[in-house]
Amino acid sequence: MDRQERRNLSMLFDFYEMTMSGGYFRLGMQDRVTYFDVFFRRVPDRGGFAIAAGLEQLVDYIRDLHFDEEDIAYLRSKNLFGEDFLDYLRQFRFTGDIWAVPEGTPVFPGEPLVTVRAPASQAQLIETYALLAINHQSLIATKANRVVRAAQGRTVLEFGSRRAQGADGAIVGARAAYIGGVHGTACAVSDQLYGVPAAGTMAHSWVQMFDTQYEAFKTYCEIYPTNAVLLVDTYNTLKSGVPDAIRAFNEVLKPRGITKCGIRLDSGDIAYLTKEARKMLDEAGWQSCTISASNALDENLITDLLLQGARIDCFGVGERLITARSEPVFGCVYKLAAVEDGDGTIRPKIKISENVAKITTPHFKKLYRFYGSDTGKAIADYMTVHDETVDDSRPLTIFDPDATWKKKEVYDFTARELQVPVFRKGELVYKLPSLPEIRAYCLKEVDTLWEEVKRFDNPHKYYVDLSRRLWDVKHGLLEQNG
Amino acid sequence: MDRQERRNLSMLFDFYEMTMSGGYFRLGMQDRVTYFDVFFRRVPDRGGFAIAAGLEQLVDYIRDLHFDEEDIAYLRSKNLFGEDFLDYLRQFRFTGDIWAVPEGTPVFPGEPLVTVRAPASQAQLIETYALLAINHQSLIATKANRVVRAAQGRTVLEFGSRRAQGADGAIVGARAAYIGGVHGTACAVSDQLYGVPAAGTMAHSWVQMFDTQYEAFKTYCEIYPTNAVLLVDTYNTLKSGVPDAIRAFNEVLKPRGITKCGIRLDSGDIAYLTKEARKMLDEAGWQSCTISASNALDENLITDLLLQGARIDCFGVGERLITARSEPVFGCVYKLAAVEDGDGTIRPKIKISENVAKITTPHFKKLYRFYGSDTGKAIADYMTVHDETVDDSRPLTIFDPDATWKKKEVYDFTARELQVPVFRKGELVYKLPSLPEIRAYCLKEVDTLWEEVKRFDNPHKYYVDLSRRLWDVKHGLLEQNG
Repeated sequence: MDRQERRNLSMLFDFYEMTMSGGYFRLGMQDRVTYFDVFFRRVPDRGGFAIAAGLEQLVDYIRDLHFDEEDIAYLRSKNLFGEDFLDYLRQFRFTGDIWAVPEGTPVFPGEPLVTVRAPASQAQLIETYALLAINHQSLIATKANRVVRAAQGRTVLEFGSRRAQGADGAIVGARAAYIGGVHGTACAVSDQLYGVPAAGTMAHSWVQMFDTQYEAFKTYCEIYPTNAVLLVDTYNTLKSGVPDAIRAFNEVLKPRGITKCGIRLDSGDIAYLTKEARKMLDEAGWQSCTISASNALDENLITDLLLQGARIDCFGVGERLITARSEPVFGCVYKLAAVEDGDGTIRPKIKISENVAKITTPHFKKLYRFYGSDTGKAIADYMTVHDETVDDSRPLTIFDPDATWKKKEVYDFTARELQVPVFRKGELVYKLPSLPEIRAYCLKEVDTLWEEVKRFDNPHKYYVDLSRRLWDVKHGLLEQNG
Repeated sequence: MDRQERRNLSMLFDFYEMTMSGGYFRLGMQDRVTYFDVFFRRVPDRGGFAIAAGLEQLVDYIRDLHFDEEDIAYLRSKNLFGEDFLDYLRQFRFTGDIWAVPEGTPVFPGEPLVTVRAPASQAQLIETYALLAINHQSLIATKANRVVRAAQGRTVLEFGSRRAQGADGAIVGARAAYIGGVHGTACAVSDQLYGVPAAGTMAHSWVQMFDTQYEAFKTYCEIYPTNAVLLVDTYNTLKSGVPDAIRAFNEVLKPRGITKCGIRLDSGDIAYLTKEARKMLDEAGWQSCTISASNALDENLITDLLLQGARIDCFGVGERLITARSEPVFGCVYKLAAVEDGDGTIRPKIKISENVAKITTPHFKKLYRFYGSDTGKAIADYMTVHDETVDDSRPLTIFDPDATWKKKEVYDFTARELQVPVFRKGELVYKLPSLPEIRAYCLKEVDTLWEEVKRFDNPHKYYVDLSRRLWDVKHGLLEQNG
């Protein structure tokens, strides 16, 4: 099969996952039950929150996870693994449990976006792809949500395929951008596979293929009268681009009673040019003509353009969204949180670090979000040991896990468990929502955040507190190992 | 078929490629011969040159390019295309010519890395993927080459899969990093598919799974005596990590006569810790033990660590390489350079811009590199009209295309055409080199650049000049259209 057609994601692991997995097998530890958390430590772009995404990719991967003879042969060639382990890999299926925060959920540093409970050899092997899927999709969904919020209700389209980091970067990147709130994409295959609405009309090359710009516009309108967004900056936007567009609209669309149309600018002083273009279109009776802009945009430039009074209905956002150019890495890690003894006792594990921010929160946990009953707004998140239950019918005192004397009483609130069961003994028990459902859920949940958490500069730190019991477990382990 | 298995890259196009392609078809212009150039305008990270890569991905794509019934059905659902055009797509194959600079070649702004000569509807349709493939692979190869040069001959391994932008970002990303000069990767599938040597040993979780660090190390050495690189920073690198490693080496490796081994640090003050660790290892008689470091590294940190006298034999470089974090976009564009009249006359086309740097160089061109006969060093690149020939047996006067009074006479040089024919009438006529061949060629060609072009800060600008005839064509069109 062709290399590009062959998508053996089972082999997408850092080699050390396999040496560790093989080591556990050799020691007879392969079925020791382990708990791993996927969490991040810092929101990109100094934002107040991130958008969790990538669970569907992780689910697809887990369901397909297996090793065929070609894979076994490759591993054998490394001269590190015994035939008994290679036999084990031949039979390999994921048989563990996975809980995860649904895609589209706003999330905060330190929270387990995914929790894996599985035999050691399995839990270790899925680390690389689990991180890759969650990191990439969360990165783009988070960035897209910033861009969409900057556009203040205007349309945002994802235009970045040509600058994406590989085919997946474009294809599933557009999916993540849609979760974060963009309205569509230029990328046809993301529409075909995921239902992200794709659209597009013309590049400069179309205009250059005709003897005159007017002919290029008129011809285009004749061929695609219902999809006429004309690129007006090939020669001179205001001197010829907009006038030629108006003339084409008048001659081709008007007689057909079509009012829906648009122009697009991809260069120049966008604020000035769109204001002038708007005047020209309005004076010509084309109030219905939308203006799109698409030159090196991101949330900062969009905010700035709108402050300058630019008249833009639709932003086409390319490389700075599809690569999250300002900070192109989402830093989820995959850390051991607990192991089970033979009798099922859960032994919490901690990873110490001289860097306090890098110390993990141990144990098999539960993650709650508290919403104010009156406002519907998210008040705080709260992590507990797995078998604790929050009673939201009575007030609860929570405290800052770093500055424990900072206490807060919450009352009149609804507690919601954020993680849902996804796999149970290797079986998918979660109904994956459709992409429009995820997107709608994301926008709704972002609405539950206070403006102070959402602002771009110096956002308010959202509380992610630990229950007293979980805090005690963590500090007990710190005292013991520190 | 599963979404992740299905790799229909033929549908990976910006939607406007299809509306334009369909438009040419409707007008009977689909077979009009067009010339497009793929080129970039600026080297990332303010570097002096880039490394061209991605041609193999482009070749795979072109060879597979076709539309099946599912694709046709999707396009029909858009209500924009007639059945005659959909029939045309059913038969669609690429029948044009492609020339390209071989992968691994150092390249400079404005140079055509790829030139496409094809019927308009075809040339337009391949734009998105051609750019995606060349941009992504060139981005990572260029970054990797910077990292490798910073390491001054030490081993560099690519460790970034978990932070890559999608599965391709990891898989073909590691391929590009290898072209740029890294020695291997952690990513197993990149080894399996592309032969990028993969390796790895243990993460912190391995150490945490045992009652003591010493037990974790000893056990690992027993299982993988020939692959023992121990991660020594889980608890305290110098107090327990290095001593436990030495003890395990002494007890397990020494009796077997194994001297090859290593330690790895992933946190802390790497310069200080590696110097101290080196002393401890040497004093214990483990001069053969290598030291690897792998915490948020890039070319700047590596340069800095080496200046501080860090004792590192191997750098593991993760997110900052696999995403080219400091500048994660390679900016190739795809611009119309010429069209053919019915009689085969080539009419050069130019794209004007108020931004002088964005004005294209028109025409079907040839690209030469001049090497000094005495030094073997690259002196200048030189673009000509396609039917010009450079006679390197006699001196040639070249001039700066922007400051034409700056002239230089080159003599005693060898002129080499940089582009090679890749497709001829849709048939692959290029023997794709193996990945090790590409990597070796890249390192050799980078050696032909003067140090002044290679330095990281304020590199010397390398000359990319136009022949007098090409310059005249360009300025004639500028006068005419400006």
